[in-house]
Amino acid sequence: MAGNSFGELFRITTWGESHGDAVGVVIDGVISGISLSDADIQKELDRRKPGQSTVSSPRKEPDTVVILSGVFEGKTTGAPISLMVKNSDAHSSAYESLQKTPRPGHADLAYFEKYGNYDYRGGGRSSGRETVGRVAAGAVAKKILAAAGIEVVCHVVQIGMVHADSCVLDKFSLPEIKERIQENPVRCADFAAASAMEKTVKAAQENKDSVGGIVEGRICGIPAGLGEPVFDKLDADLAKAIMSIGAVKGFEIGDGFLAGSAQGSQFNDEMEWTDDGTGRTISMKTNHSGGILGGISTGGEIRFRAAVKPTPSIARPQRTVNLDTKDNEIIEISGRHDPVIAPRIVPVCEAMAAIVILDHFMRRKALDHKTLR
Amino acid sequence: MAGNSFGELFRITTWGESHGDAVGVVIDGVISGISLSDADIQKELDRRKPGQSTVSSPRKEPDTVVILSGVFEGKTTGAPISLMVKNSDAHSSAYESLQKTPRPGHADLAYFEKYGNYDYRGGGRSSGRETVGRVAAGAVAKKILAAAGIEVVCHVVQIGMVHADSCVLDKFSLPEIKERIQENPVRCADFAAASAMEKTVKAAQENKDSVGGIVEGRICGIPAGLGEPVFDKLDADLAKAIMSIGAVKGFEIGDGFLAGSAQGSQFNDEMEWTDDGTGRTISMKTNHSGGILGGISTGGEIRFRAAVKPTPSIARPQRTVNLDTKDNEIIEISGRHDPVIAPRIVPVCEAMAAIVILDHFMRRKALDHKTLR
Amino acid sequence: MAGNSFGELFRITTWGESHGDAVGVVIDGVISGISLSDADIQKELDRRKPGQSTVSSPRKEPDTVVILSGVFEGKTTGAPISLMVKNSDAHSSAYESLQKTPRPGHADLAYFEKYGNYDYRGGGRSSGRETVGRVAAGAVAKKILAAAGIEVVCHVVQIGMVHADSCVLDKFSLPEIKERIQENPVRCADFAAASAMEKTVKAAQENKDSVGGIVEGRICGIPAGLGEPVFDKLDADLAKAIMSIGAVKGFEIGDGFLAGSAQGSQFNDEMEWTDDGTGRTISMKTNHSGGILGGISTGGEIRFRAAVKPTPSIARPQRTVNLDTKDNEIIEISGRHDPVIAPRIVPVCEAMAAIVILDHFMRRKALDHKTLR
Amino acid sequence: MAGNSFGELFRITTWGESHGDAVGVVIDGVISGISLSDADIQKELDRRKPGQSTVSSPRKEPDTVVILSGVFEGKTTGAPISLMVKNSDAHSSAYESLQKTPRPGHADLAYFEKYGNYDYRGGGRSSGRETVGRVAAGAVAKKILAAAGIEVVCHVVQIGMVHADSCVLDKFSLPEIKERIQENPVRCADFAAASAMEKTVKAAQENKDSVGGIVEGRICGIPAGLGEPVFDKLDADLAKAIMSIGAVKGFEIGDGFLAGSAQGSQFNDEMEWTDDGTGRTISMKTNHSGGILGGISTGGEIRFRAAVKPTPSIARPQRTVNLDTKDNEIIEISGRHDPVIAPRIVPVCEAMAAIVILDHFMRRKALDHKTLR
Repeated sequence: MAGNSFGELFRITTWGESHGDAVGVVIDGVISGISLSDADIQKELDRRKPGQSTVSSPRKEPDTVVILSGVFEGKTTGAPISLMVKNSDAHSSAYESLQKTPRPGHADLAYFEKYGNYDYRGGGRSSGRETVGRVAAGAVAKKILAAAGIEVVCHVVQIGMVHADSCVLDKFSLPEIKERIQENPVRCADFAAASAMEKTVKAAQENKDSVGGIVEGRICGIPAGLGEPVFDKLDADLAKAIMSIGAVKGFEIGDGFLAGSAQGSQFNDEMEWTDDGTGRTISMKTNHSGGILGGISTGGEIRFRAAVKPTPSIARPQRTVNLDTKDNEIIEISGRHDPVIAPRIVPVCEAMAAIVILDHFMRRKALDHKTLR
Repeated sequence: MAGNSFGELFRITTWGESHGDAVGVVIDGVISGISLSDADIQKELDRRKPGQSTVSSPRKEPDTVVILSGVFEGKTTGAPISLMVKNSDAHSSAYESLQKTPRPGHADLAYFEKYGNYDYRGGGRSSGRETVGRVAAGAVAKKILAAAGIEVVCHVVQIGMVHADSCVLDKFSLPEIKERIQENPVRCADFAAASAMEKTVKAAQENKDSVGGIVEGRICGIPAGLGEPVFDKLDADLAKAIMSIGAVKGFEIGDGFLAGSAQGSQFNDEMEWTDDGTGRTISMKTNHSGGILGGISTGGEIRFRAAVKPTPSIARPQRTVNLDTKDNEIIEISGRHDPVIAPRIVPVCEAMAAIVILDHFMRRKALDHKTLR
Repeated sequence: MAGNSFGELFRITTWGESHGDAVGVVIDGVISGISLSDADIQKELDRRKPGQSTVSSPRKEPDTVVILSGVFEGKTTGAPISLMVKNSDAHSSAYESLQKTPRPGHADLAYFEKYGNYDYRGGGRSSGRETVGRVAAGAVAKKILAAAGIEVVCHVVQIGMVHADSCVLDKFSLPEIKERIQENPVRCADFAAASAMEKTVKAAQENKDSVGGIVEGRICGIPAGLGEPVFDKLDADLAKAIMSIGAVKGFEIGDGFLAGSAQGSQFNDEMEWTDDGTGRTISMKTNHSGGILGGISTGGEIRFRAAVKPTPSIARPQRTVNLDTKDNEIIEISGRHDPVIAPRIVPVCEAMAAIVILDHFMRRKALDHKTLR
Repeated sequence: MAGNSFGELFRITTWGESHGDAVGVVIDGVISGISLSDADIQKELDRRKPGQSTVSSPRKEPDTVVILSGVFEGKTTGAPISLMVKNSDAHSSAYESLQKTPRPGHADLAYFEKYGNYDYRGGGRSSGRETVGRVAAGAVAKKILAAAGIEVVCHVVQIGMVHADSCVLDKFSLPEIKERIQENPVRCADFAAASAMEKTVKAAQENKDSVGGIVEGRICGIPAGLGEPVFDKLDADLAKAIMSIGAVKGFEIGDGFLAGSAQGSQFNDEMEWTDDGTGRTISMKTNHSGGILGGISTGGEIRFRAAVKPTPSIARPQRTVNLDTKDNEIIEISGRHDPVIAPRIVPVCEAMAAIVILDHFMRRKALDHKTLR
């Protein structure tokens, strides 16, 4: 109810502030008997951490995860898994000048109105650092999903005015896209676009500015029948999960906003029986719906997109208020900040999507009509 | 968990199928002592019901609500409110030919995969008729919010390729928009655009086709501090609420997808102290964020948008599968269907947004730091 | 959160007041494909309804259930099941004198403090009539459990100072107990005790008084592994379910309060391998634990007991307050009231226990370590 | 859903095994601005920890709490509070012989059936060590409740066959009882009984046995109106909270099981207007109901009792099964074990009761009919 938990059957609770002692997550609902090591989680945290490239902030944190509970002799026991990452490189002094002047585009003022305080040392809970817990929990979810043949891949398709070319992207399989986005700092599988995106980011940075972007998510191997009508539709839960990531301002499934200008005859995905030699199965030639109809997965690939706003912390002078003096002020935000958020959000989107899918997978097991009769 | 409930403190559970005996909703968490009559609810149901204009289906249903519990001598008692609407004009025979041929763009196939059955008589739970319960519950939420000075207004801003002119819309206050959308069947406050939208809808209909649209939601009078970090952000919960409405394919808060191509210096809303004579308050000149920062309301107007797909039921022949014979078939869907969904979704969007806002209003009361110390 | 729902995966929401138009329940989480008819539910409601014997109130209500949704062509569809029973024989005029004088032992005063009102027409939500919804939902749960070989049987083991003889009860199998309690109005399988109980009830009634009792619940056929450590222990959830029934003042699992005076060497249930010809299985010779250890079912029979207070409505003059005049008053409660509650609570206890067991059964399916790897 | 969380608005999630690295708890829903220090929590943990007396196990653990998040500059911020206690004195080697022989009276076998494993090193999650997190969270709840004038006090009223004398107890106020139970290791305010209880415990210990007990809980200063009809009754939630503590086998509110043999004229608490000089208020001379009617607090003192079973770990030889060899075996449990659990459970019962009361206090704020109109 106070908002720090997500999921029903696979349920995560994150804790910790950007400049406190540590951040972490408790995961409840992990089935027993799954092999799980520090390395499984560390590899996802390493994808999340800053300081990895020219387009992200140089803050260097080892972000080493510790498994405090729930794993015994290398396997999950069914008990809650508690994961902790120490905060080691937090220069809170950089923020002291911000104690009374909430930063534009940040949650500072809203937190102050809500709690009577805000964590001027980098935003506290509203900081991107909170996503450490999400990504750590997502690593567990991804491991379980992988065993069921389900894979979640996110990648950047737009930064500023630069779009990836969908014809280029269509040439690659999902595993290829997963590989290719490791090759450049903007995590875009279209290398020509990636190069232009990097230039856009650098130009913004030199200009003491920042830039937004769009992340696409794709989920393959998903069975039909995930999602619960009428409120817990699979796309509604994905929307909440992705919109709960700071900086995300929009969510689309399938054709999304394009559907608003489409005609039914263009938008409907027609069905047909096809036979790949192993038996007749139903398939759709088009995927305008994004793999979800009536809130329930159809078995086809799920596709969604998230709009990511530009980093609010920019080096330019900005107008804000002083909460003490009640004067207007001009602030300049120092410290280290990514000039673009979208690439860093890629592993966070994957984590949240994986958690939603696993949670609905478990719901389907509970509610499945084919057993308990 | 099976998805037919929404909200935490103000919690609704809808039930009923499009061609069953009745549809309804149970609302738990209505505070006692609120004046509430059939008429309060009926007036919202009347806005929802079909057969009202040339752009919606001629199905005639009185849709008369009955309050079965929770109200005594004209006031809420604090007990759950059970509301029921009988289904009176459901010609299920029109659907019998669809027993084995799931309709493209509908949930039929997904339900079949999930439940081993689907309600060929108009979709059952996946039908728009399920929204009767949402709108009825939303009427209660709106009444409570109105007493707290909060108003939710939705209106159509796009149908097909026709957009409302934002310069025209900006001339009107929210109450004026609320009035104006009653003047035309497409519920658009820009009358010139509305006229073009109507033509678009009729053209689609004549062409045995349908057309999509975009609905904008605006909430005014909202206090700062609603929304719970980090997962139950106000915009994340709005996204889930709106995306849970059938036919909605996308959700944006504030600038939404435009944020993906924006720069931080354009996007950040700067703050300033202003004085309207009653004391200094903090305000923002721009509203790119849509009234929410870090998932918490800032006190400014909330703005969101929903992408609505074209009606999937179209009169043209469409390709689908026969689940029995495993043959491919061509179906033609008869019956009465709206050629556009967006205008009819307006009261549903209002209802869902009102429920989210009231729920978070109640959460804030529970968690408010200014009491219980 | 406002308390009118119970269960997580099999979730019921009851609504309706004792003297309103109707009472009912919405059940969410019923798997599809289960045969379900009015008769399945009616038979449990008939066990619950008053006016059946000399020891219960002569209020005559047909209590005919209507299935409003969720069943199509005789089978559950997976959609929420809405059940309604009209209130037909409610003489609210009998209560009008109680508008300002809360009845001792009833919830009247507590409701008044909480809601600013109380339903003087028989208690509203706090009336035993609310259990119609529980029993109707329990009938659905029992039907699903029966298909899985699980049976819940409750029976009266004490009324006033009269106890059933455990040596007598031990002679009967659970199905026999189920049969035998239909033979007498106090629902006690020990007929000698039943006869004495009836006398106790009649004596209390003649004396314008009422009497308490104890109900035992037994669940057989239950698999090992139900219950979730550490808070959602199976016995903790049973305790909540049973204590949520009005008039229940205590709950025990296994030896219950006797455990407080026992020694470990007496109380521990020792284990042994036994072989009934079909293979070696683990069993326990004793059942002090009541079939649950560490909150998890062991596979043995579950045994619990509920303490039921005497009917608070008695014909004797009682002292109470007038909320208007702020004077002390003497009231005499007219109307029809059971002189004992325990026998009537039997089907309600069965319903609540069945709902808990089914809910945990479904949770186990979701969290089972043997699948999804 | 997997059972490691408790509470709705004030929500705790415990994690950690008895012989893992650490145990802890995350608390969500702590209002901001509350002064909170390590010492506030440590003092409750010190009451819980073992090795304090001759009647409890000599395991020595400093049990030092670390506040990892949610507190800044000595005050709560509204963010989740993460608390951790390292496990320092866990001799798991003592348990190695138990790898294949589940201990009678313990959860070992049930866990094995559920998870395919059990933590032979002292029970893992089913160990009493899990209650560290409960007591730590309870300390926070108690601090907030104290500020609202609400106090929860638990004490031992029975061990084995020795009962505290209720006439003696009635001489003392709640604060006096709170003081007096610190004076003896059995936490009983009747010193004569306490002395006899100690002898009972020592006799059991010398006899390689253990003994059960009963804990009473009393809550004063509570406002009327807490508790949500019909399922989330205050006593139902207290029952679940207390029954969720390992070793508790029964729960009573007010007269509890005595109600089963009582008559209505004895049991009903009559009301009267009284005037203490500050105005007329309603009071009851008796408290058979235990301060709760219809599941809602009446404003009077709440009284409940919990039956605690004897420690299952006893030094005597016991019969059990070998899961590998499928042979029956005799085991002798070495290691350090309390010969009685009831006194150690006292702070845990207080913690759980405090959490329930605070949670319902917050619900009442959310649902209160006197605001938001």
